[in-house]
Amino acid sequence: MANLSSPNLIALFLGLGILLLAARFMGEIARRLSLPSVLGEILAGILLGPTIFAAVAPELSAFLFPDTGSGAVAFEALTTLAITLFLLVAGIEVDLSTVWRQGKVAICVAVPGMLFPFAFGFAAAILAPDFLGFPPSGDRLVFALVMATVLSISALPIIAKILLDLKIYRSDLGVMLIAAAAVTDLLGWLVFAAILGTTGAGHGALPVAHTLWITGVYTVAMLTVVPWIIHRLLPWIQAYTSWPAGVLTFVLSMAFFSAAFTEWLGIHAIFGAFLAGVAIGHSAHLREQTRTTLDQFISFIFAPLFFAGIGLHINFAAHFDLPLTAILLGLALSGKVLGSALGGRWGGLPWREAWGAGFGMSAQGTMGIILGVLALQVGLIGQNVFVSLVVMALVTTMLSGPMLQRILRLKRPRRFTDHLAPHGFIGHLQAVTREDTITEMCRALAEKSNLDSEEVIAAVLARERIMATGLGGGIAVPHSRMENLPAPLIEVGLSPAGIDFDAPDGHPVHIIFLILTPVRDNGAQLEILADIGATFRNENVRAQAMQISGQTEFLALVNSER
Amino acid sequence: MANLSSPNLIALFLGLGILLLAARFMGEIARRLSLPSVLGEILAGILLGPTIFAAVAPELSAFLFPDTGSGAVAFEALTTLAITLFLLVAGIEVDLSTVWRQGKVAICVAVPGMLFPFAFGFAAAILAPDFLGFPPSGDRLVFALVMATVLSISALPIIAKILLDLKIYRSDLGVMLIAAAAVTDLLGWLVFAAILGTTGAGHGALPVAHTLWITGVYTVAMLTVVPWIIHRLLPWIQAYTSWPAGVLTFVLSMAFFSAAFTEWLGIHAIFGAFLAGVAIGHSAHLREQTRTTLDQFISFIFAPLFFAGIGLHINFAAHFDLPLTAILLGLALSGKVLGSALGGRWGGLPWREAWGAGFGMSAQGTMGIILGVLALQVGLIGQNVFVSLVVMALVTTMLSGPMLQRILRLKRPRRFTDHLAPHGFIGHLQAVTREDTITEMCRALAEKSNLDSEEVIAAVLARERIMATGLGGGIAVPHSRMENLPAPLIEVGLSPAGIDFDAPDGHPVHIIFLILTPVRDNGAQLEILADIGATFRNENVRAQAMQISGQTEFLALVNSER
Repeated sequence: MANLSSPNLIALFLGLGILLLAARFMGEIARRLSLPSVLGEILAGILLGPTIFAAVAPELSAFLFPDTGSGAVAFEALTTLAITLFLLVAGIEVDLSTVWRQGKVAICVAVPGMLFPFAFGFAAAILAPDFLGFPPSGDRLVFALVMATVLSISALPIIAKILLDLKIYRSDLGVMLIAAAAVTDLLGWLVFAAILGTTGAGHGALPVAHTLWITGVYTVAMLTVVPWIIHRLLPWIQAYTSWPAGVLTFVLSMAFFSAAFTEWLGIHAIFGAFLAGVAIGHSAHLREQTRTTLDQFISFIFAPLFFAGIGLHINFAAHFDLPLTAILLGLALSGKVLGSALGGRWGGLPWREAWGAGFGMSAQGTMGIILGVLALQVGLIGQNVFVSLVVMALVTTMLSGPMLQRILRLKRPRRFTDHLAPHGFIGHLQAVTREDTITEMCRALAEKSNLDSEEVIAAVLARERIMATGLGGGIAVPHSRMENLPAPLIEVGLSPAGIDFDAPDGHPVHIIFLILTPVRDNGAQLEILADIGATFRNENVRAQAMQISGQTEFLALVNSER
Repeated sequence: MANLSSPNLIALFLGLGILLLAARFMGEIARRLSLPSVLGEILAGILLGPTIFAAVAPELSAFLFPDTGSGAVAFEALTTLAITLFLLVAGIEVDLSTVWRQGKVAICVAVPGMLFPFAFGFAAAILAPDFLGFPPSGDRLVFALVMATVLSISALPIIAKILLDLKIYRSDLGVMLIAAAAVTDLLGWLVFAAILGTTGAGHGALPVAHTLWITGVYTVAMLTVVPWIIHRLLPWIQAYTSWPAGVLTFVLSMAFFSAAFTEWLGIHAIFGAFLAGVAIGHSAHLREQTRTTLDQFISFIFAPLFFAGIGLHINFAAHFDLPLTAILLGLALSGKVLGSALGGRWGGLPWREAWGAGFGMSAQGTMGIILGVLALQVGLIGQNVFVSLVVMALVTTMLSGPMLQRILRLKRPRRFTDHLAPHGFIGHLQAVTREDTITEMCRALAEKSNLDSEEVIAAVLARERIMATGLGGGIAVPHSRMENLPAPLIEVGLSPAGIDFDAPDGHPVHIIFLILTPVRDNGAQLEILADIGATFRNENVRAQAMQISGQTEFLALVNSER
């Protein structure tokens, strides 16, 4: 006890709070710009580290984010725990059964998608080692292998996120990409672990040959026998221990033991946590709620701490080398896209989807950065290369989503809240009949949006007369297309008393959405209706909506029910 | 970077895994014995610490749970974070609005319930300081105040847990007890914080007078203005940041900033986290899902780490002093029970409920131990007193539930799974009619349980003829009372094809519960039926039940839907 002094604790808590807040803030800005939030989180750390903040306020920075001493150890313990748990969650997301099912195409995409950038990176490192920042004391072959591996990795969690955002996660292409990314991640980590083991850079306790075969056996066991055992163990744990303490303890202690084992092997703790995740996530007995609890706390608190922590001790401005970055980026991107696309074509995909697979697989995001951190820690690469790798990983991640969208000609799904009129929420409608309600809402919307209210009222009532717009479940969606409207416009009104909208279930309507869409935007109306339907399908959400008194609360409800 | 060596990491992960697993294991044993799990968790730490494990295997113990060095700092950082977050969750559970509503009786119970043990403890420490382990270098008044405060605390999280277990959490008495415990916790912490501030034991940066008034102002602000601001801020955060990352970040960074502030004040970080929790938890805008995510990860992973960690560095056997423990226990228990009971009577409770309130308030569990750890850390008490305080807190916690149950004459609610026959799960019933199904199930149950199968079949069919037992929603509960049955017996059968049980909704029945109860146990049948109804009310659960292939999986489902 008392290894941490009171000033240590003050600095630790202040530092954690500031880092979390900054990471979230920058993450939100990134999200607004349709960029992955991990970009913002890393940028937050760079701003708070030697690049900016420490240069401006060196004393405060050294107090909050110390480089040495007990405070530094405490911080490092937390970020190490954070990244270990993040890899556990990433492993849980790997669905082995999908890999087996989608096997052929996935492997056709994954293997050439790794071999091309691997070959490019290896060749470049052998041919021009000095340009790539080869450290003078290093081993040229090892250096080339490390560069090759880091260029050939993918990032399953990021790819999954991009596919989810584009709503093609459950399409054939989406499922195949996830399987291919899982194979790539697993192979990439295995190769990297082998390098750490071979070079002794991971400080393993065993001779190299032993490290390699034990790594192989352990990996195979964690993909075959161990998942089988866990699948049989989980129901027993959930039946005879308290819920959810028993299963959470089991998952975390498995991850910790596996991490300790691989660290002892010399192939780094987080590879073990990742394998434990794969083995546990395979079981259908791991309940959705357990996955959510782990995922939310770890992905939204621990992961940002780690990613923001990266920038805290490295000066990104001083170590940024544009030619080096450009070369690495070119090699990684061209190799990954070409390899995956050709592989996909070989596996039988049409050209368009093959190119989509190429760009889909190119997001290196989190995994590239994590490998970079490890390689830097054990001295396999220098700080210049590290900075270039981080930038490369971020740029490939930024490109992947938009390119995939363009190639597959996908439209980003619209949320109806994107079109909510300013002050477009009426908490308490006065009207008691259907016609009066529509008139009241149209008049309010027209006033705020500079439209001709009589024209709007006439159009919506005309549509309503053709067929009533009560959807059932207390919801109605009066709507009309309008000439000269630049973009869709939506207003929400609540009627605590209830209004008869001739709904199929006969119930009175309490939540009314007035929807105006431009005549030339054909898809808008259906998309908005479908989104409203999906959001308010749940009875609970409808009940909560009735308690709401303002537009912000309304947005909060819809946002948290996404 | 690289402040933690590879052996440090191996030890850290191994140590964490072992500690978590041991805490859970002992916690489950405690639960089986109807004791609070925190008892088992603390015992796990004592077994792994110098009391037992370090005495047997000193080298391994020093490797896994080091006392000094980077490894020790890393471990301490994690347990400090754990207890800070645990207090955040404890604070979130404090419902200020209940306190205001139940104000009068709650304060009548809380204040005398604190004053009595405070007076007893203070008097004893002044009259017999040496016997109570007064440290030679200490200040007698400060020591007396500390002893008095530690004896007068309650433990809101434990009391809430006991009331939930007894199913009186939402009764009038339950709500009042929660409010009273919240008042006690708040006052107790405030007094303790004032002592830390006054003595300078908390290493505050300010003169004592400043510490005191700032603590007062800060506490009042966190109970009045800050909750008001947070209540207005939360919808905004949930509307305009990504869900749930935004709100989780807000809650945790608030807690960290508040912790840093109170640590700087010299009244310890965890008081700040507790106040932050109270301020945040007050808002109805904090969604249930956010509370659950925080609560599950923190209560089931971080809290056991802290409580098990307590025993790691103290030899409980060597410092156990029976007379001291007996005296402290007697003072705390008599003071708390007498004070709260008299206060409750004064506040208008009937005598029976007043005594119930007395024993309900007497559980000191977690909070008493946490104050003890702090007092030990800053040197206000010695190790003997600390060990006695831990034992006292555990004993009062163990007594509270059973005493409350006995005084209020409550029956512990039965779960139908307690009476499931061994191998009492039939995954695929052969029969296709109602009569045949009942016959098939009765025969199977009778065989396994040594009953006369013809007698059972006749009884259940006779009952079924009076009125069909289809409940609707695909569930049926054929049942009968039987002579000479020692305890209720239940069997579950699934029929994928569906059987007509003449259910009110007309749907075929897929899940059948055969229930036999002893004739003389009047309540059993109704309790079991109500429990089955409550468990399978949810359509999702019924759908999941149909996927199940064995008894363990069935128990896992029911257990995790509690």
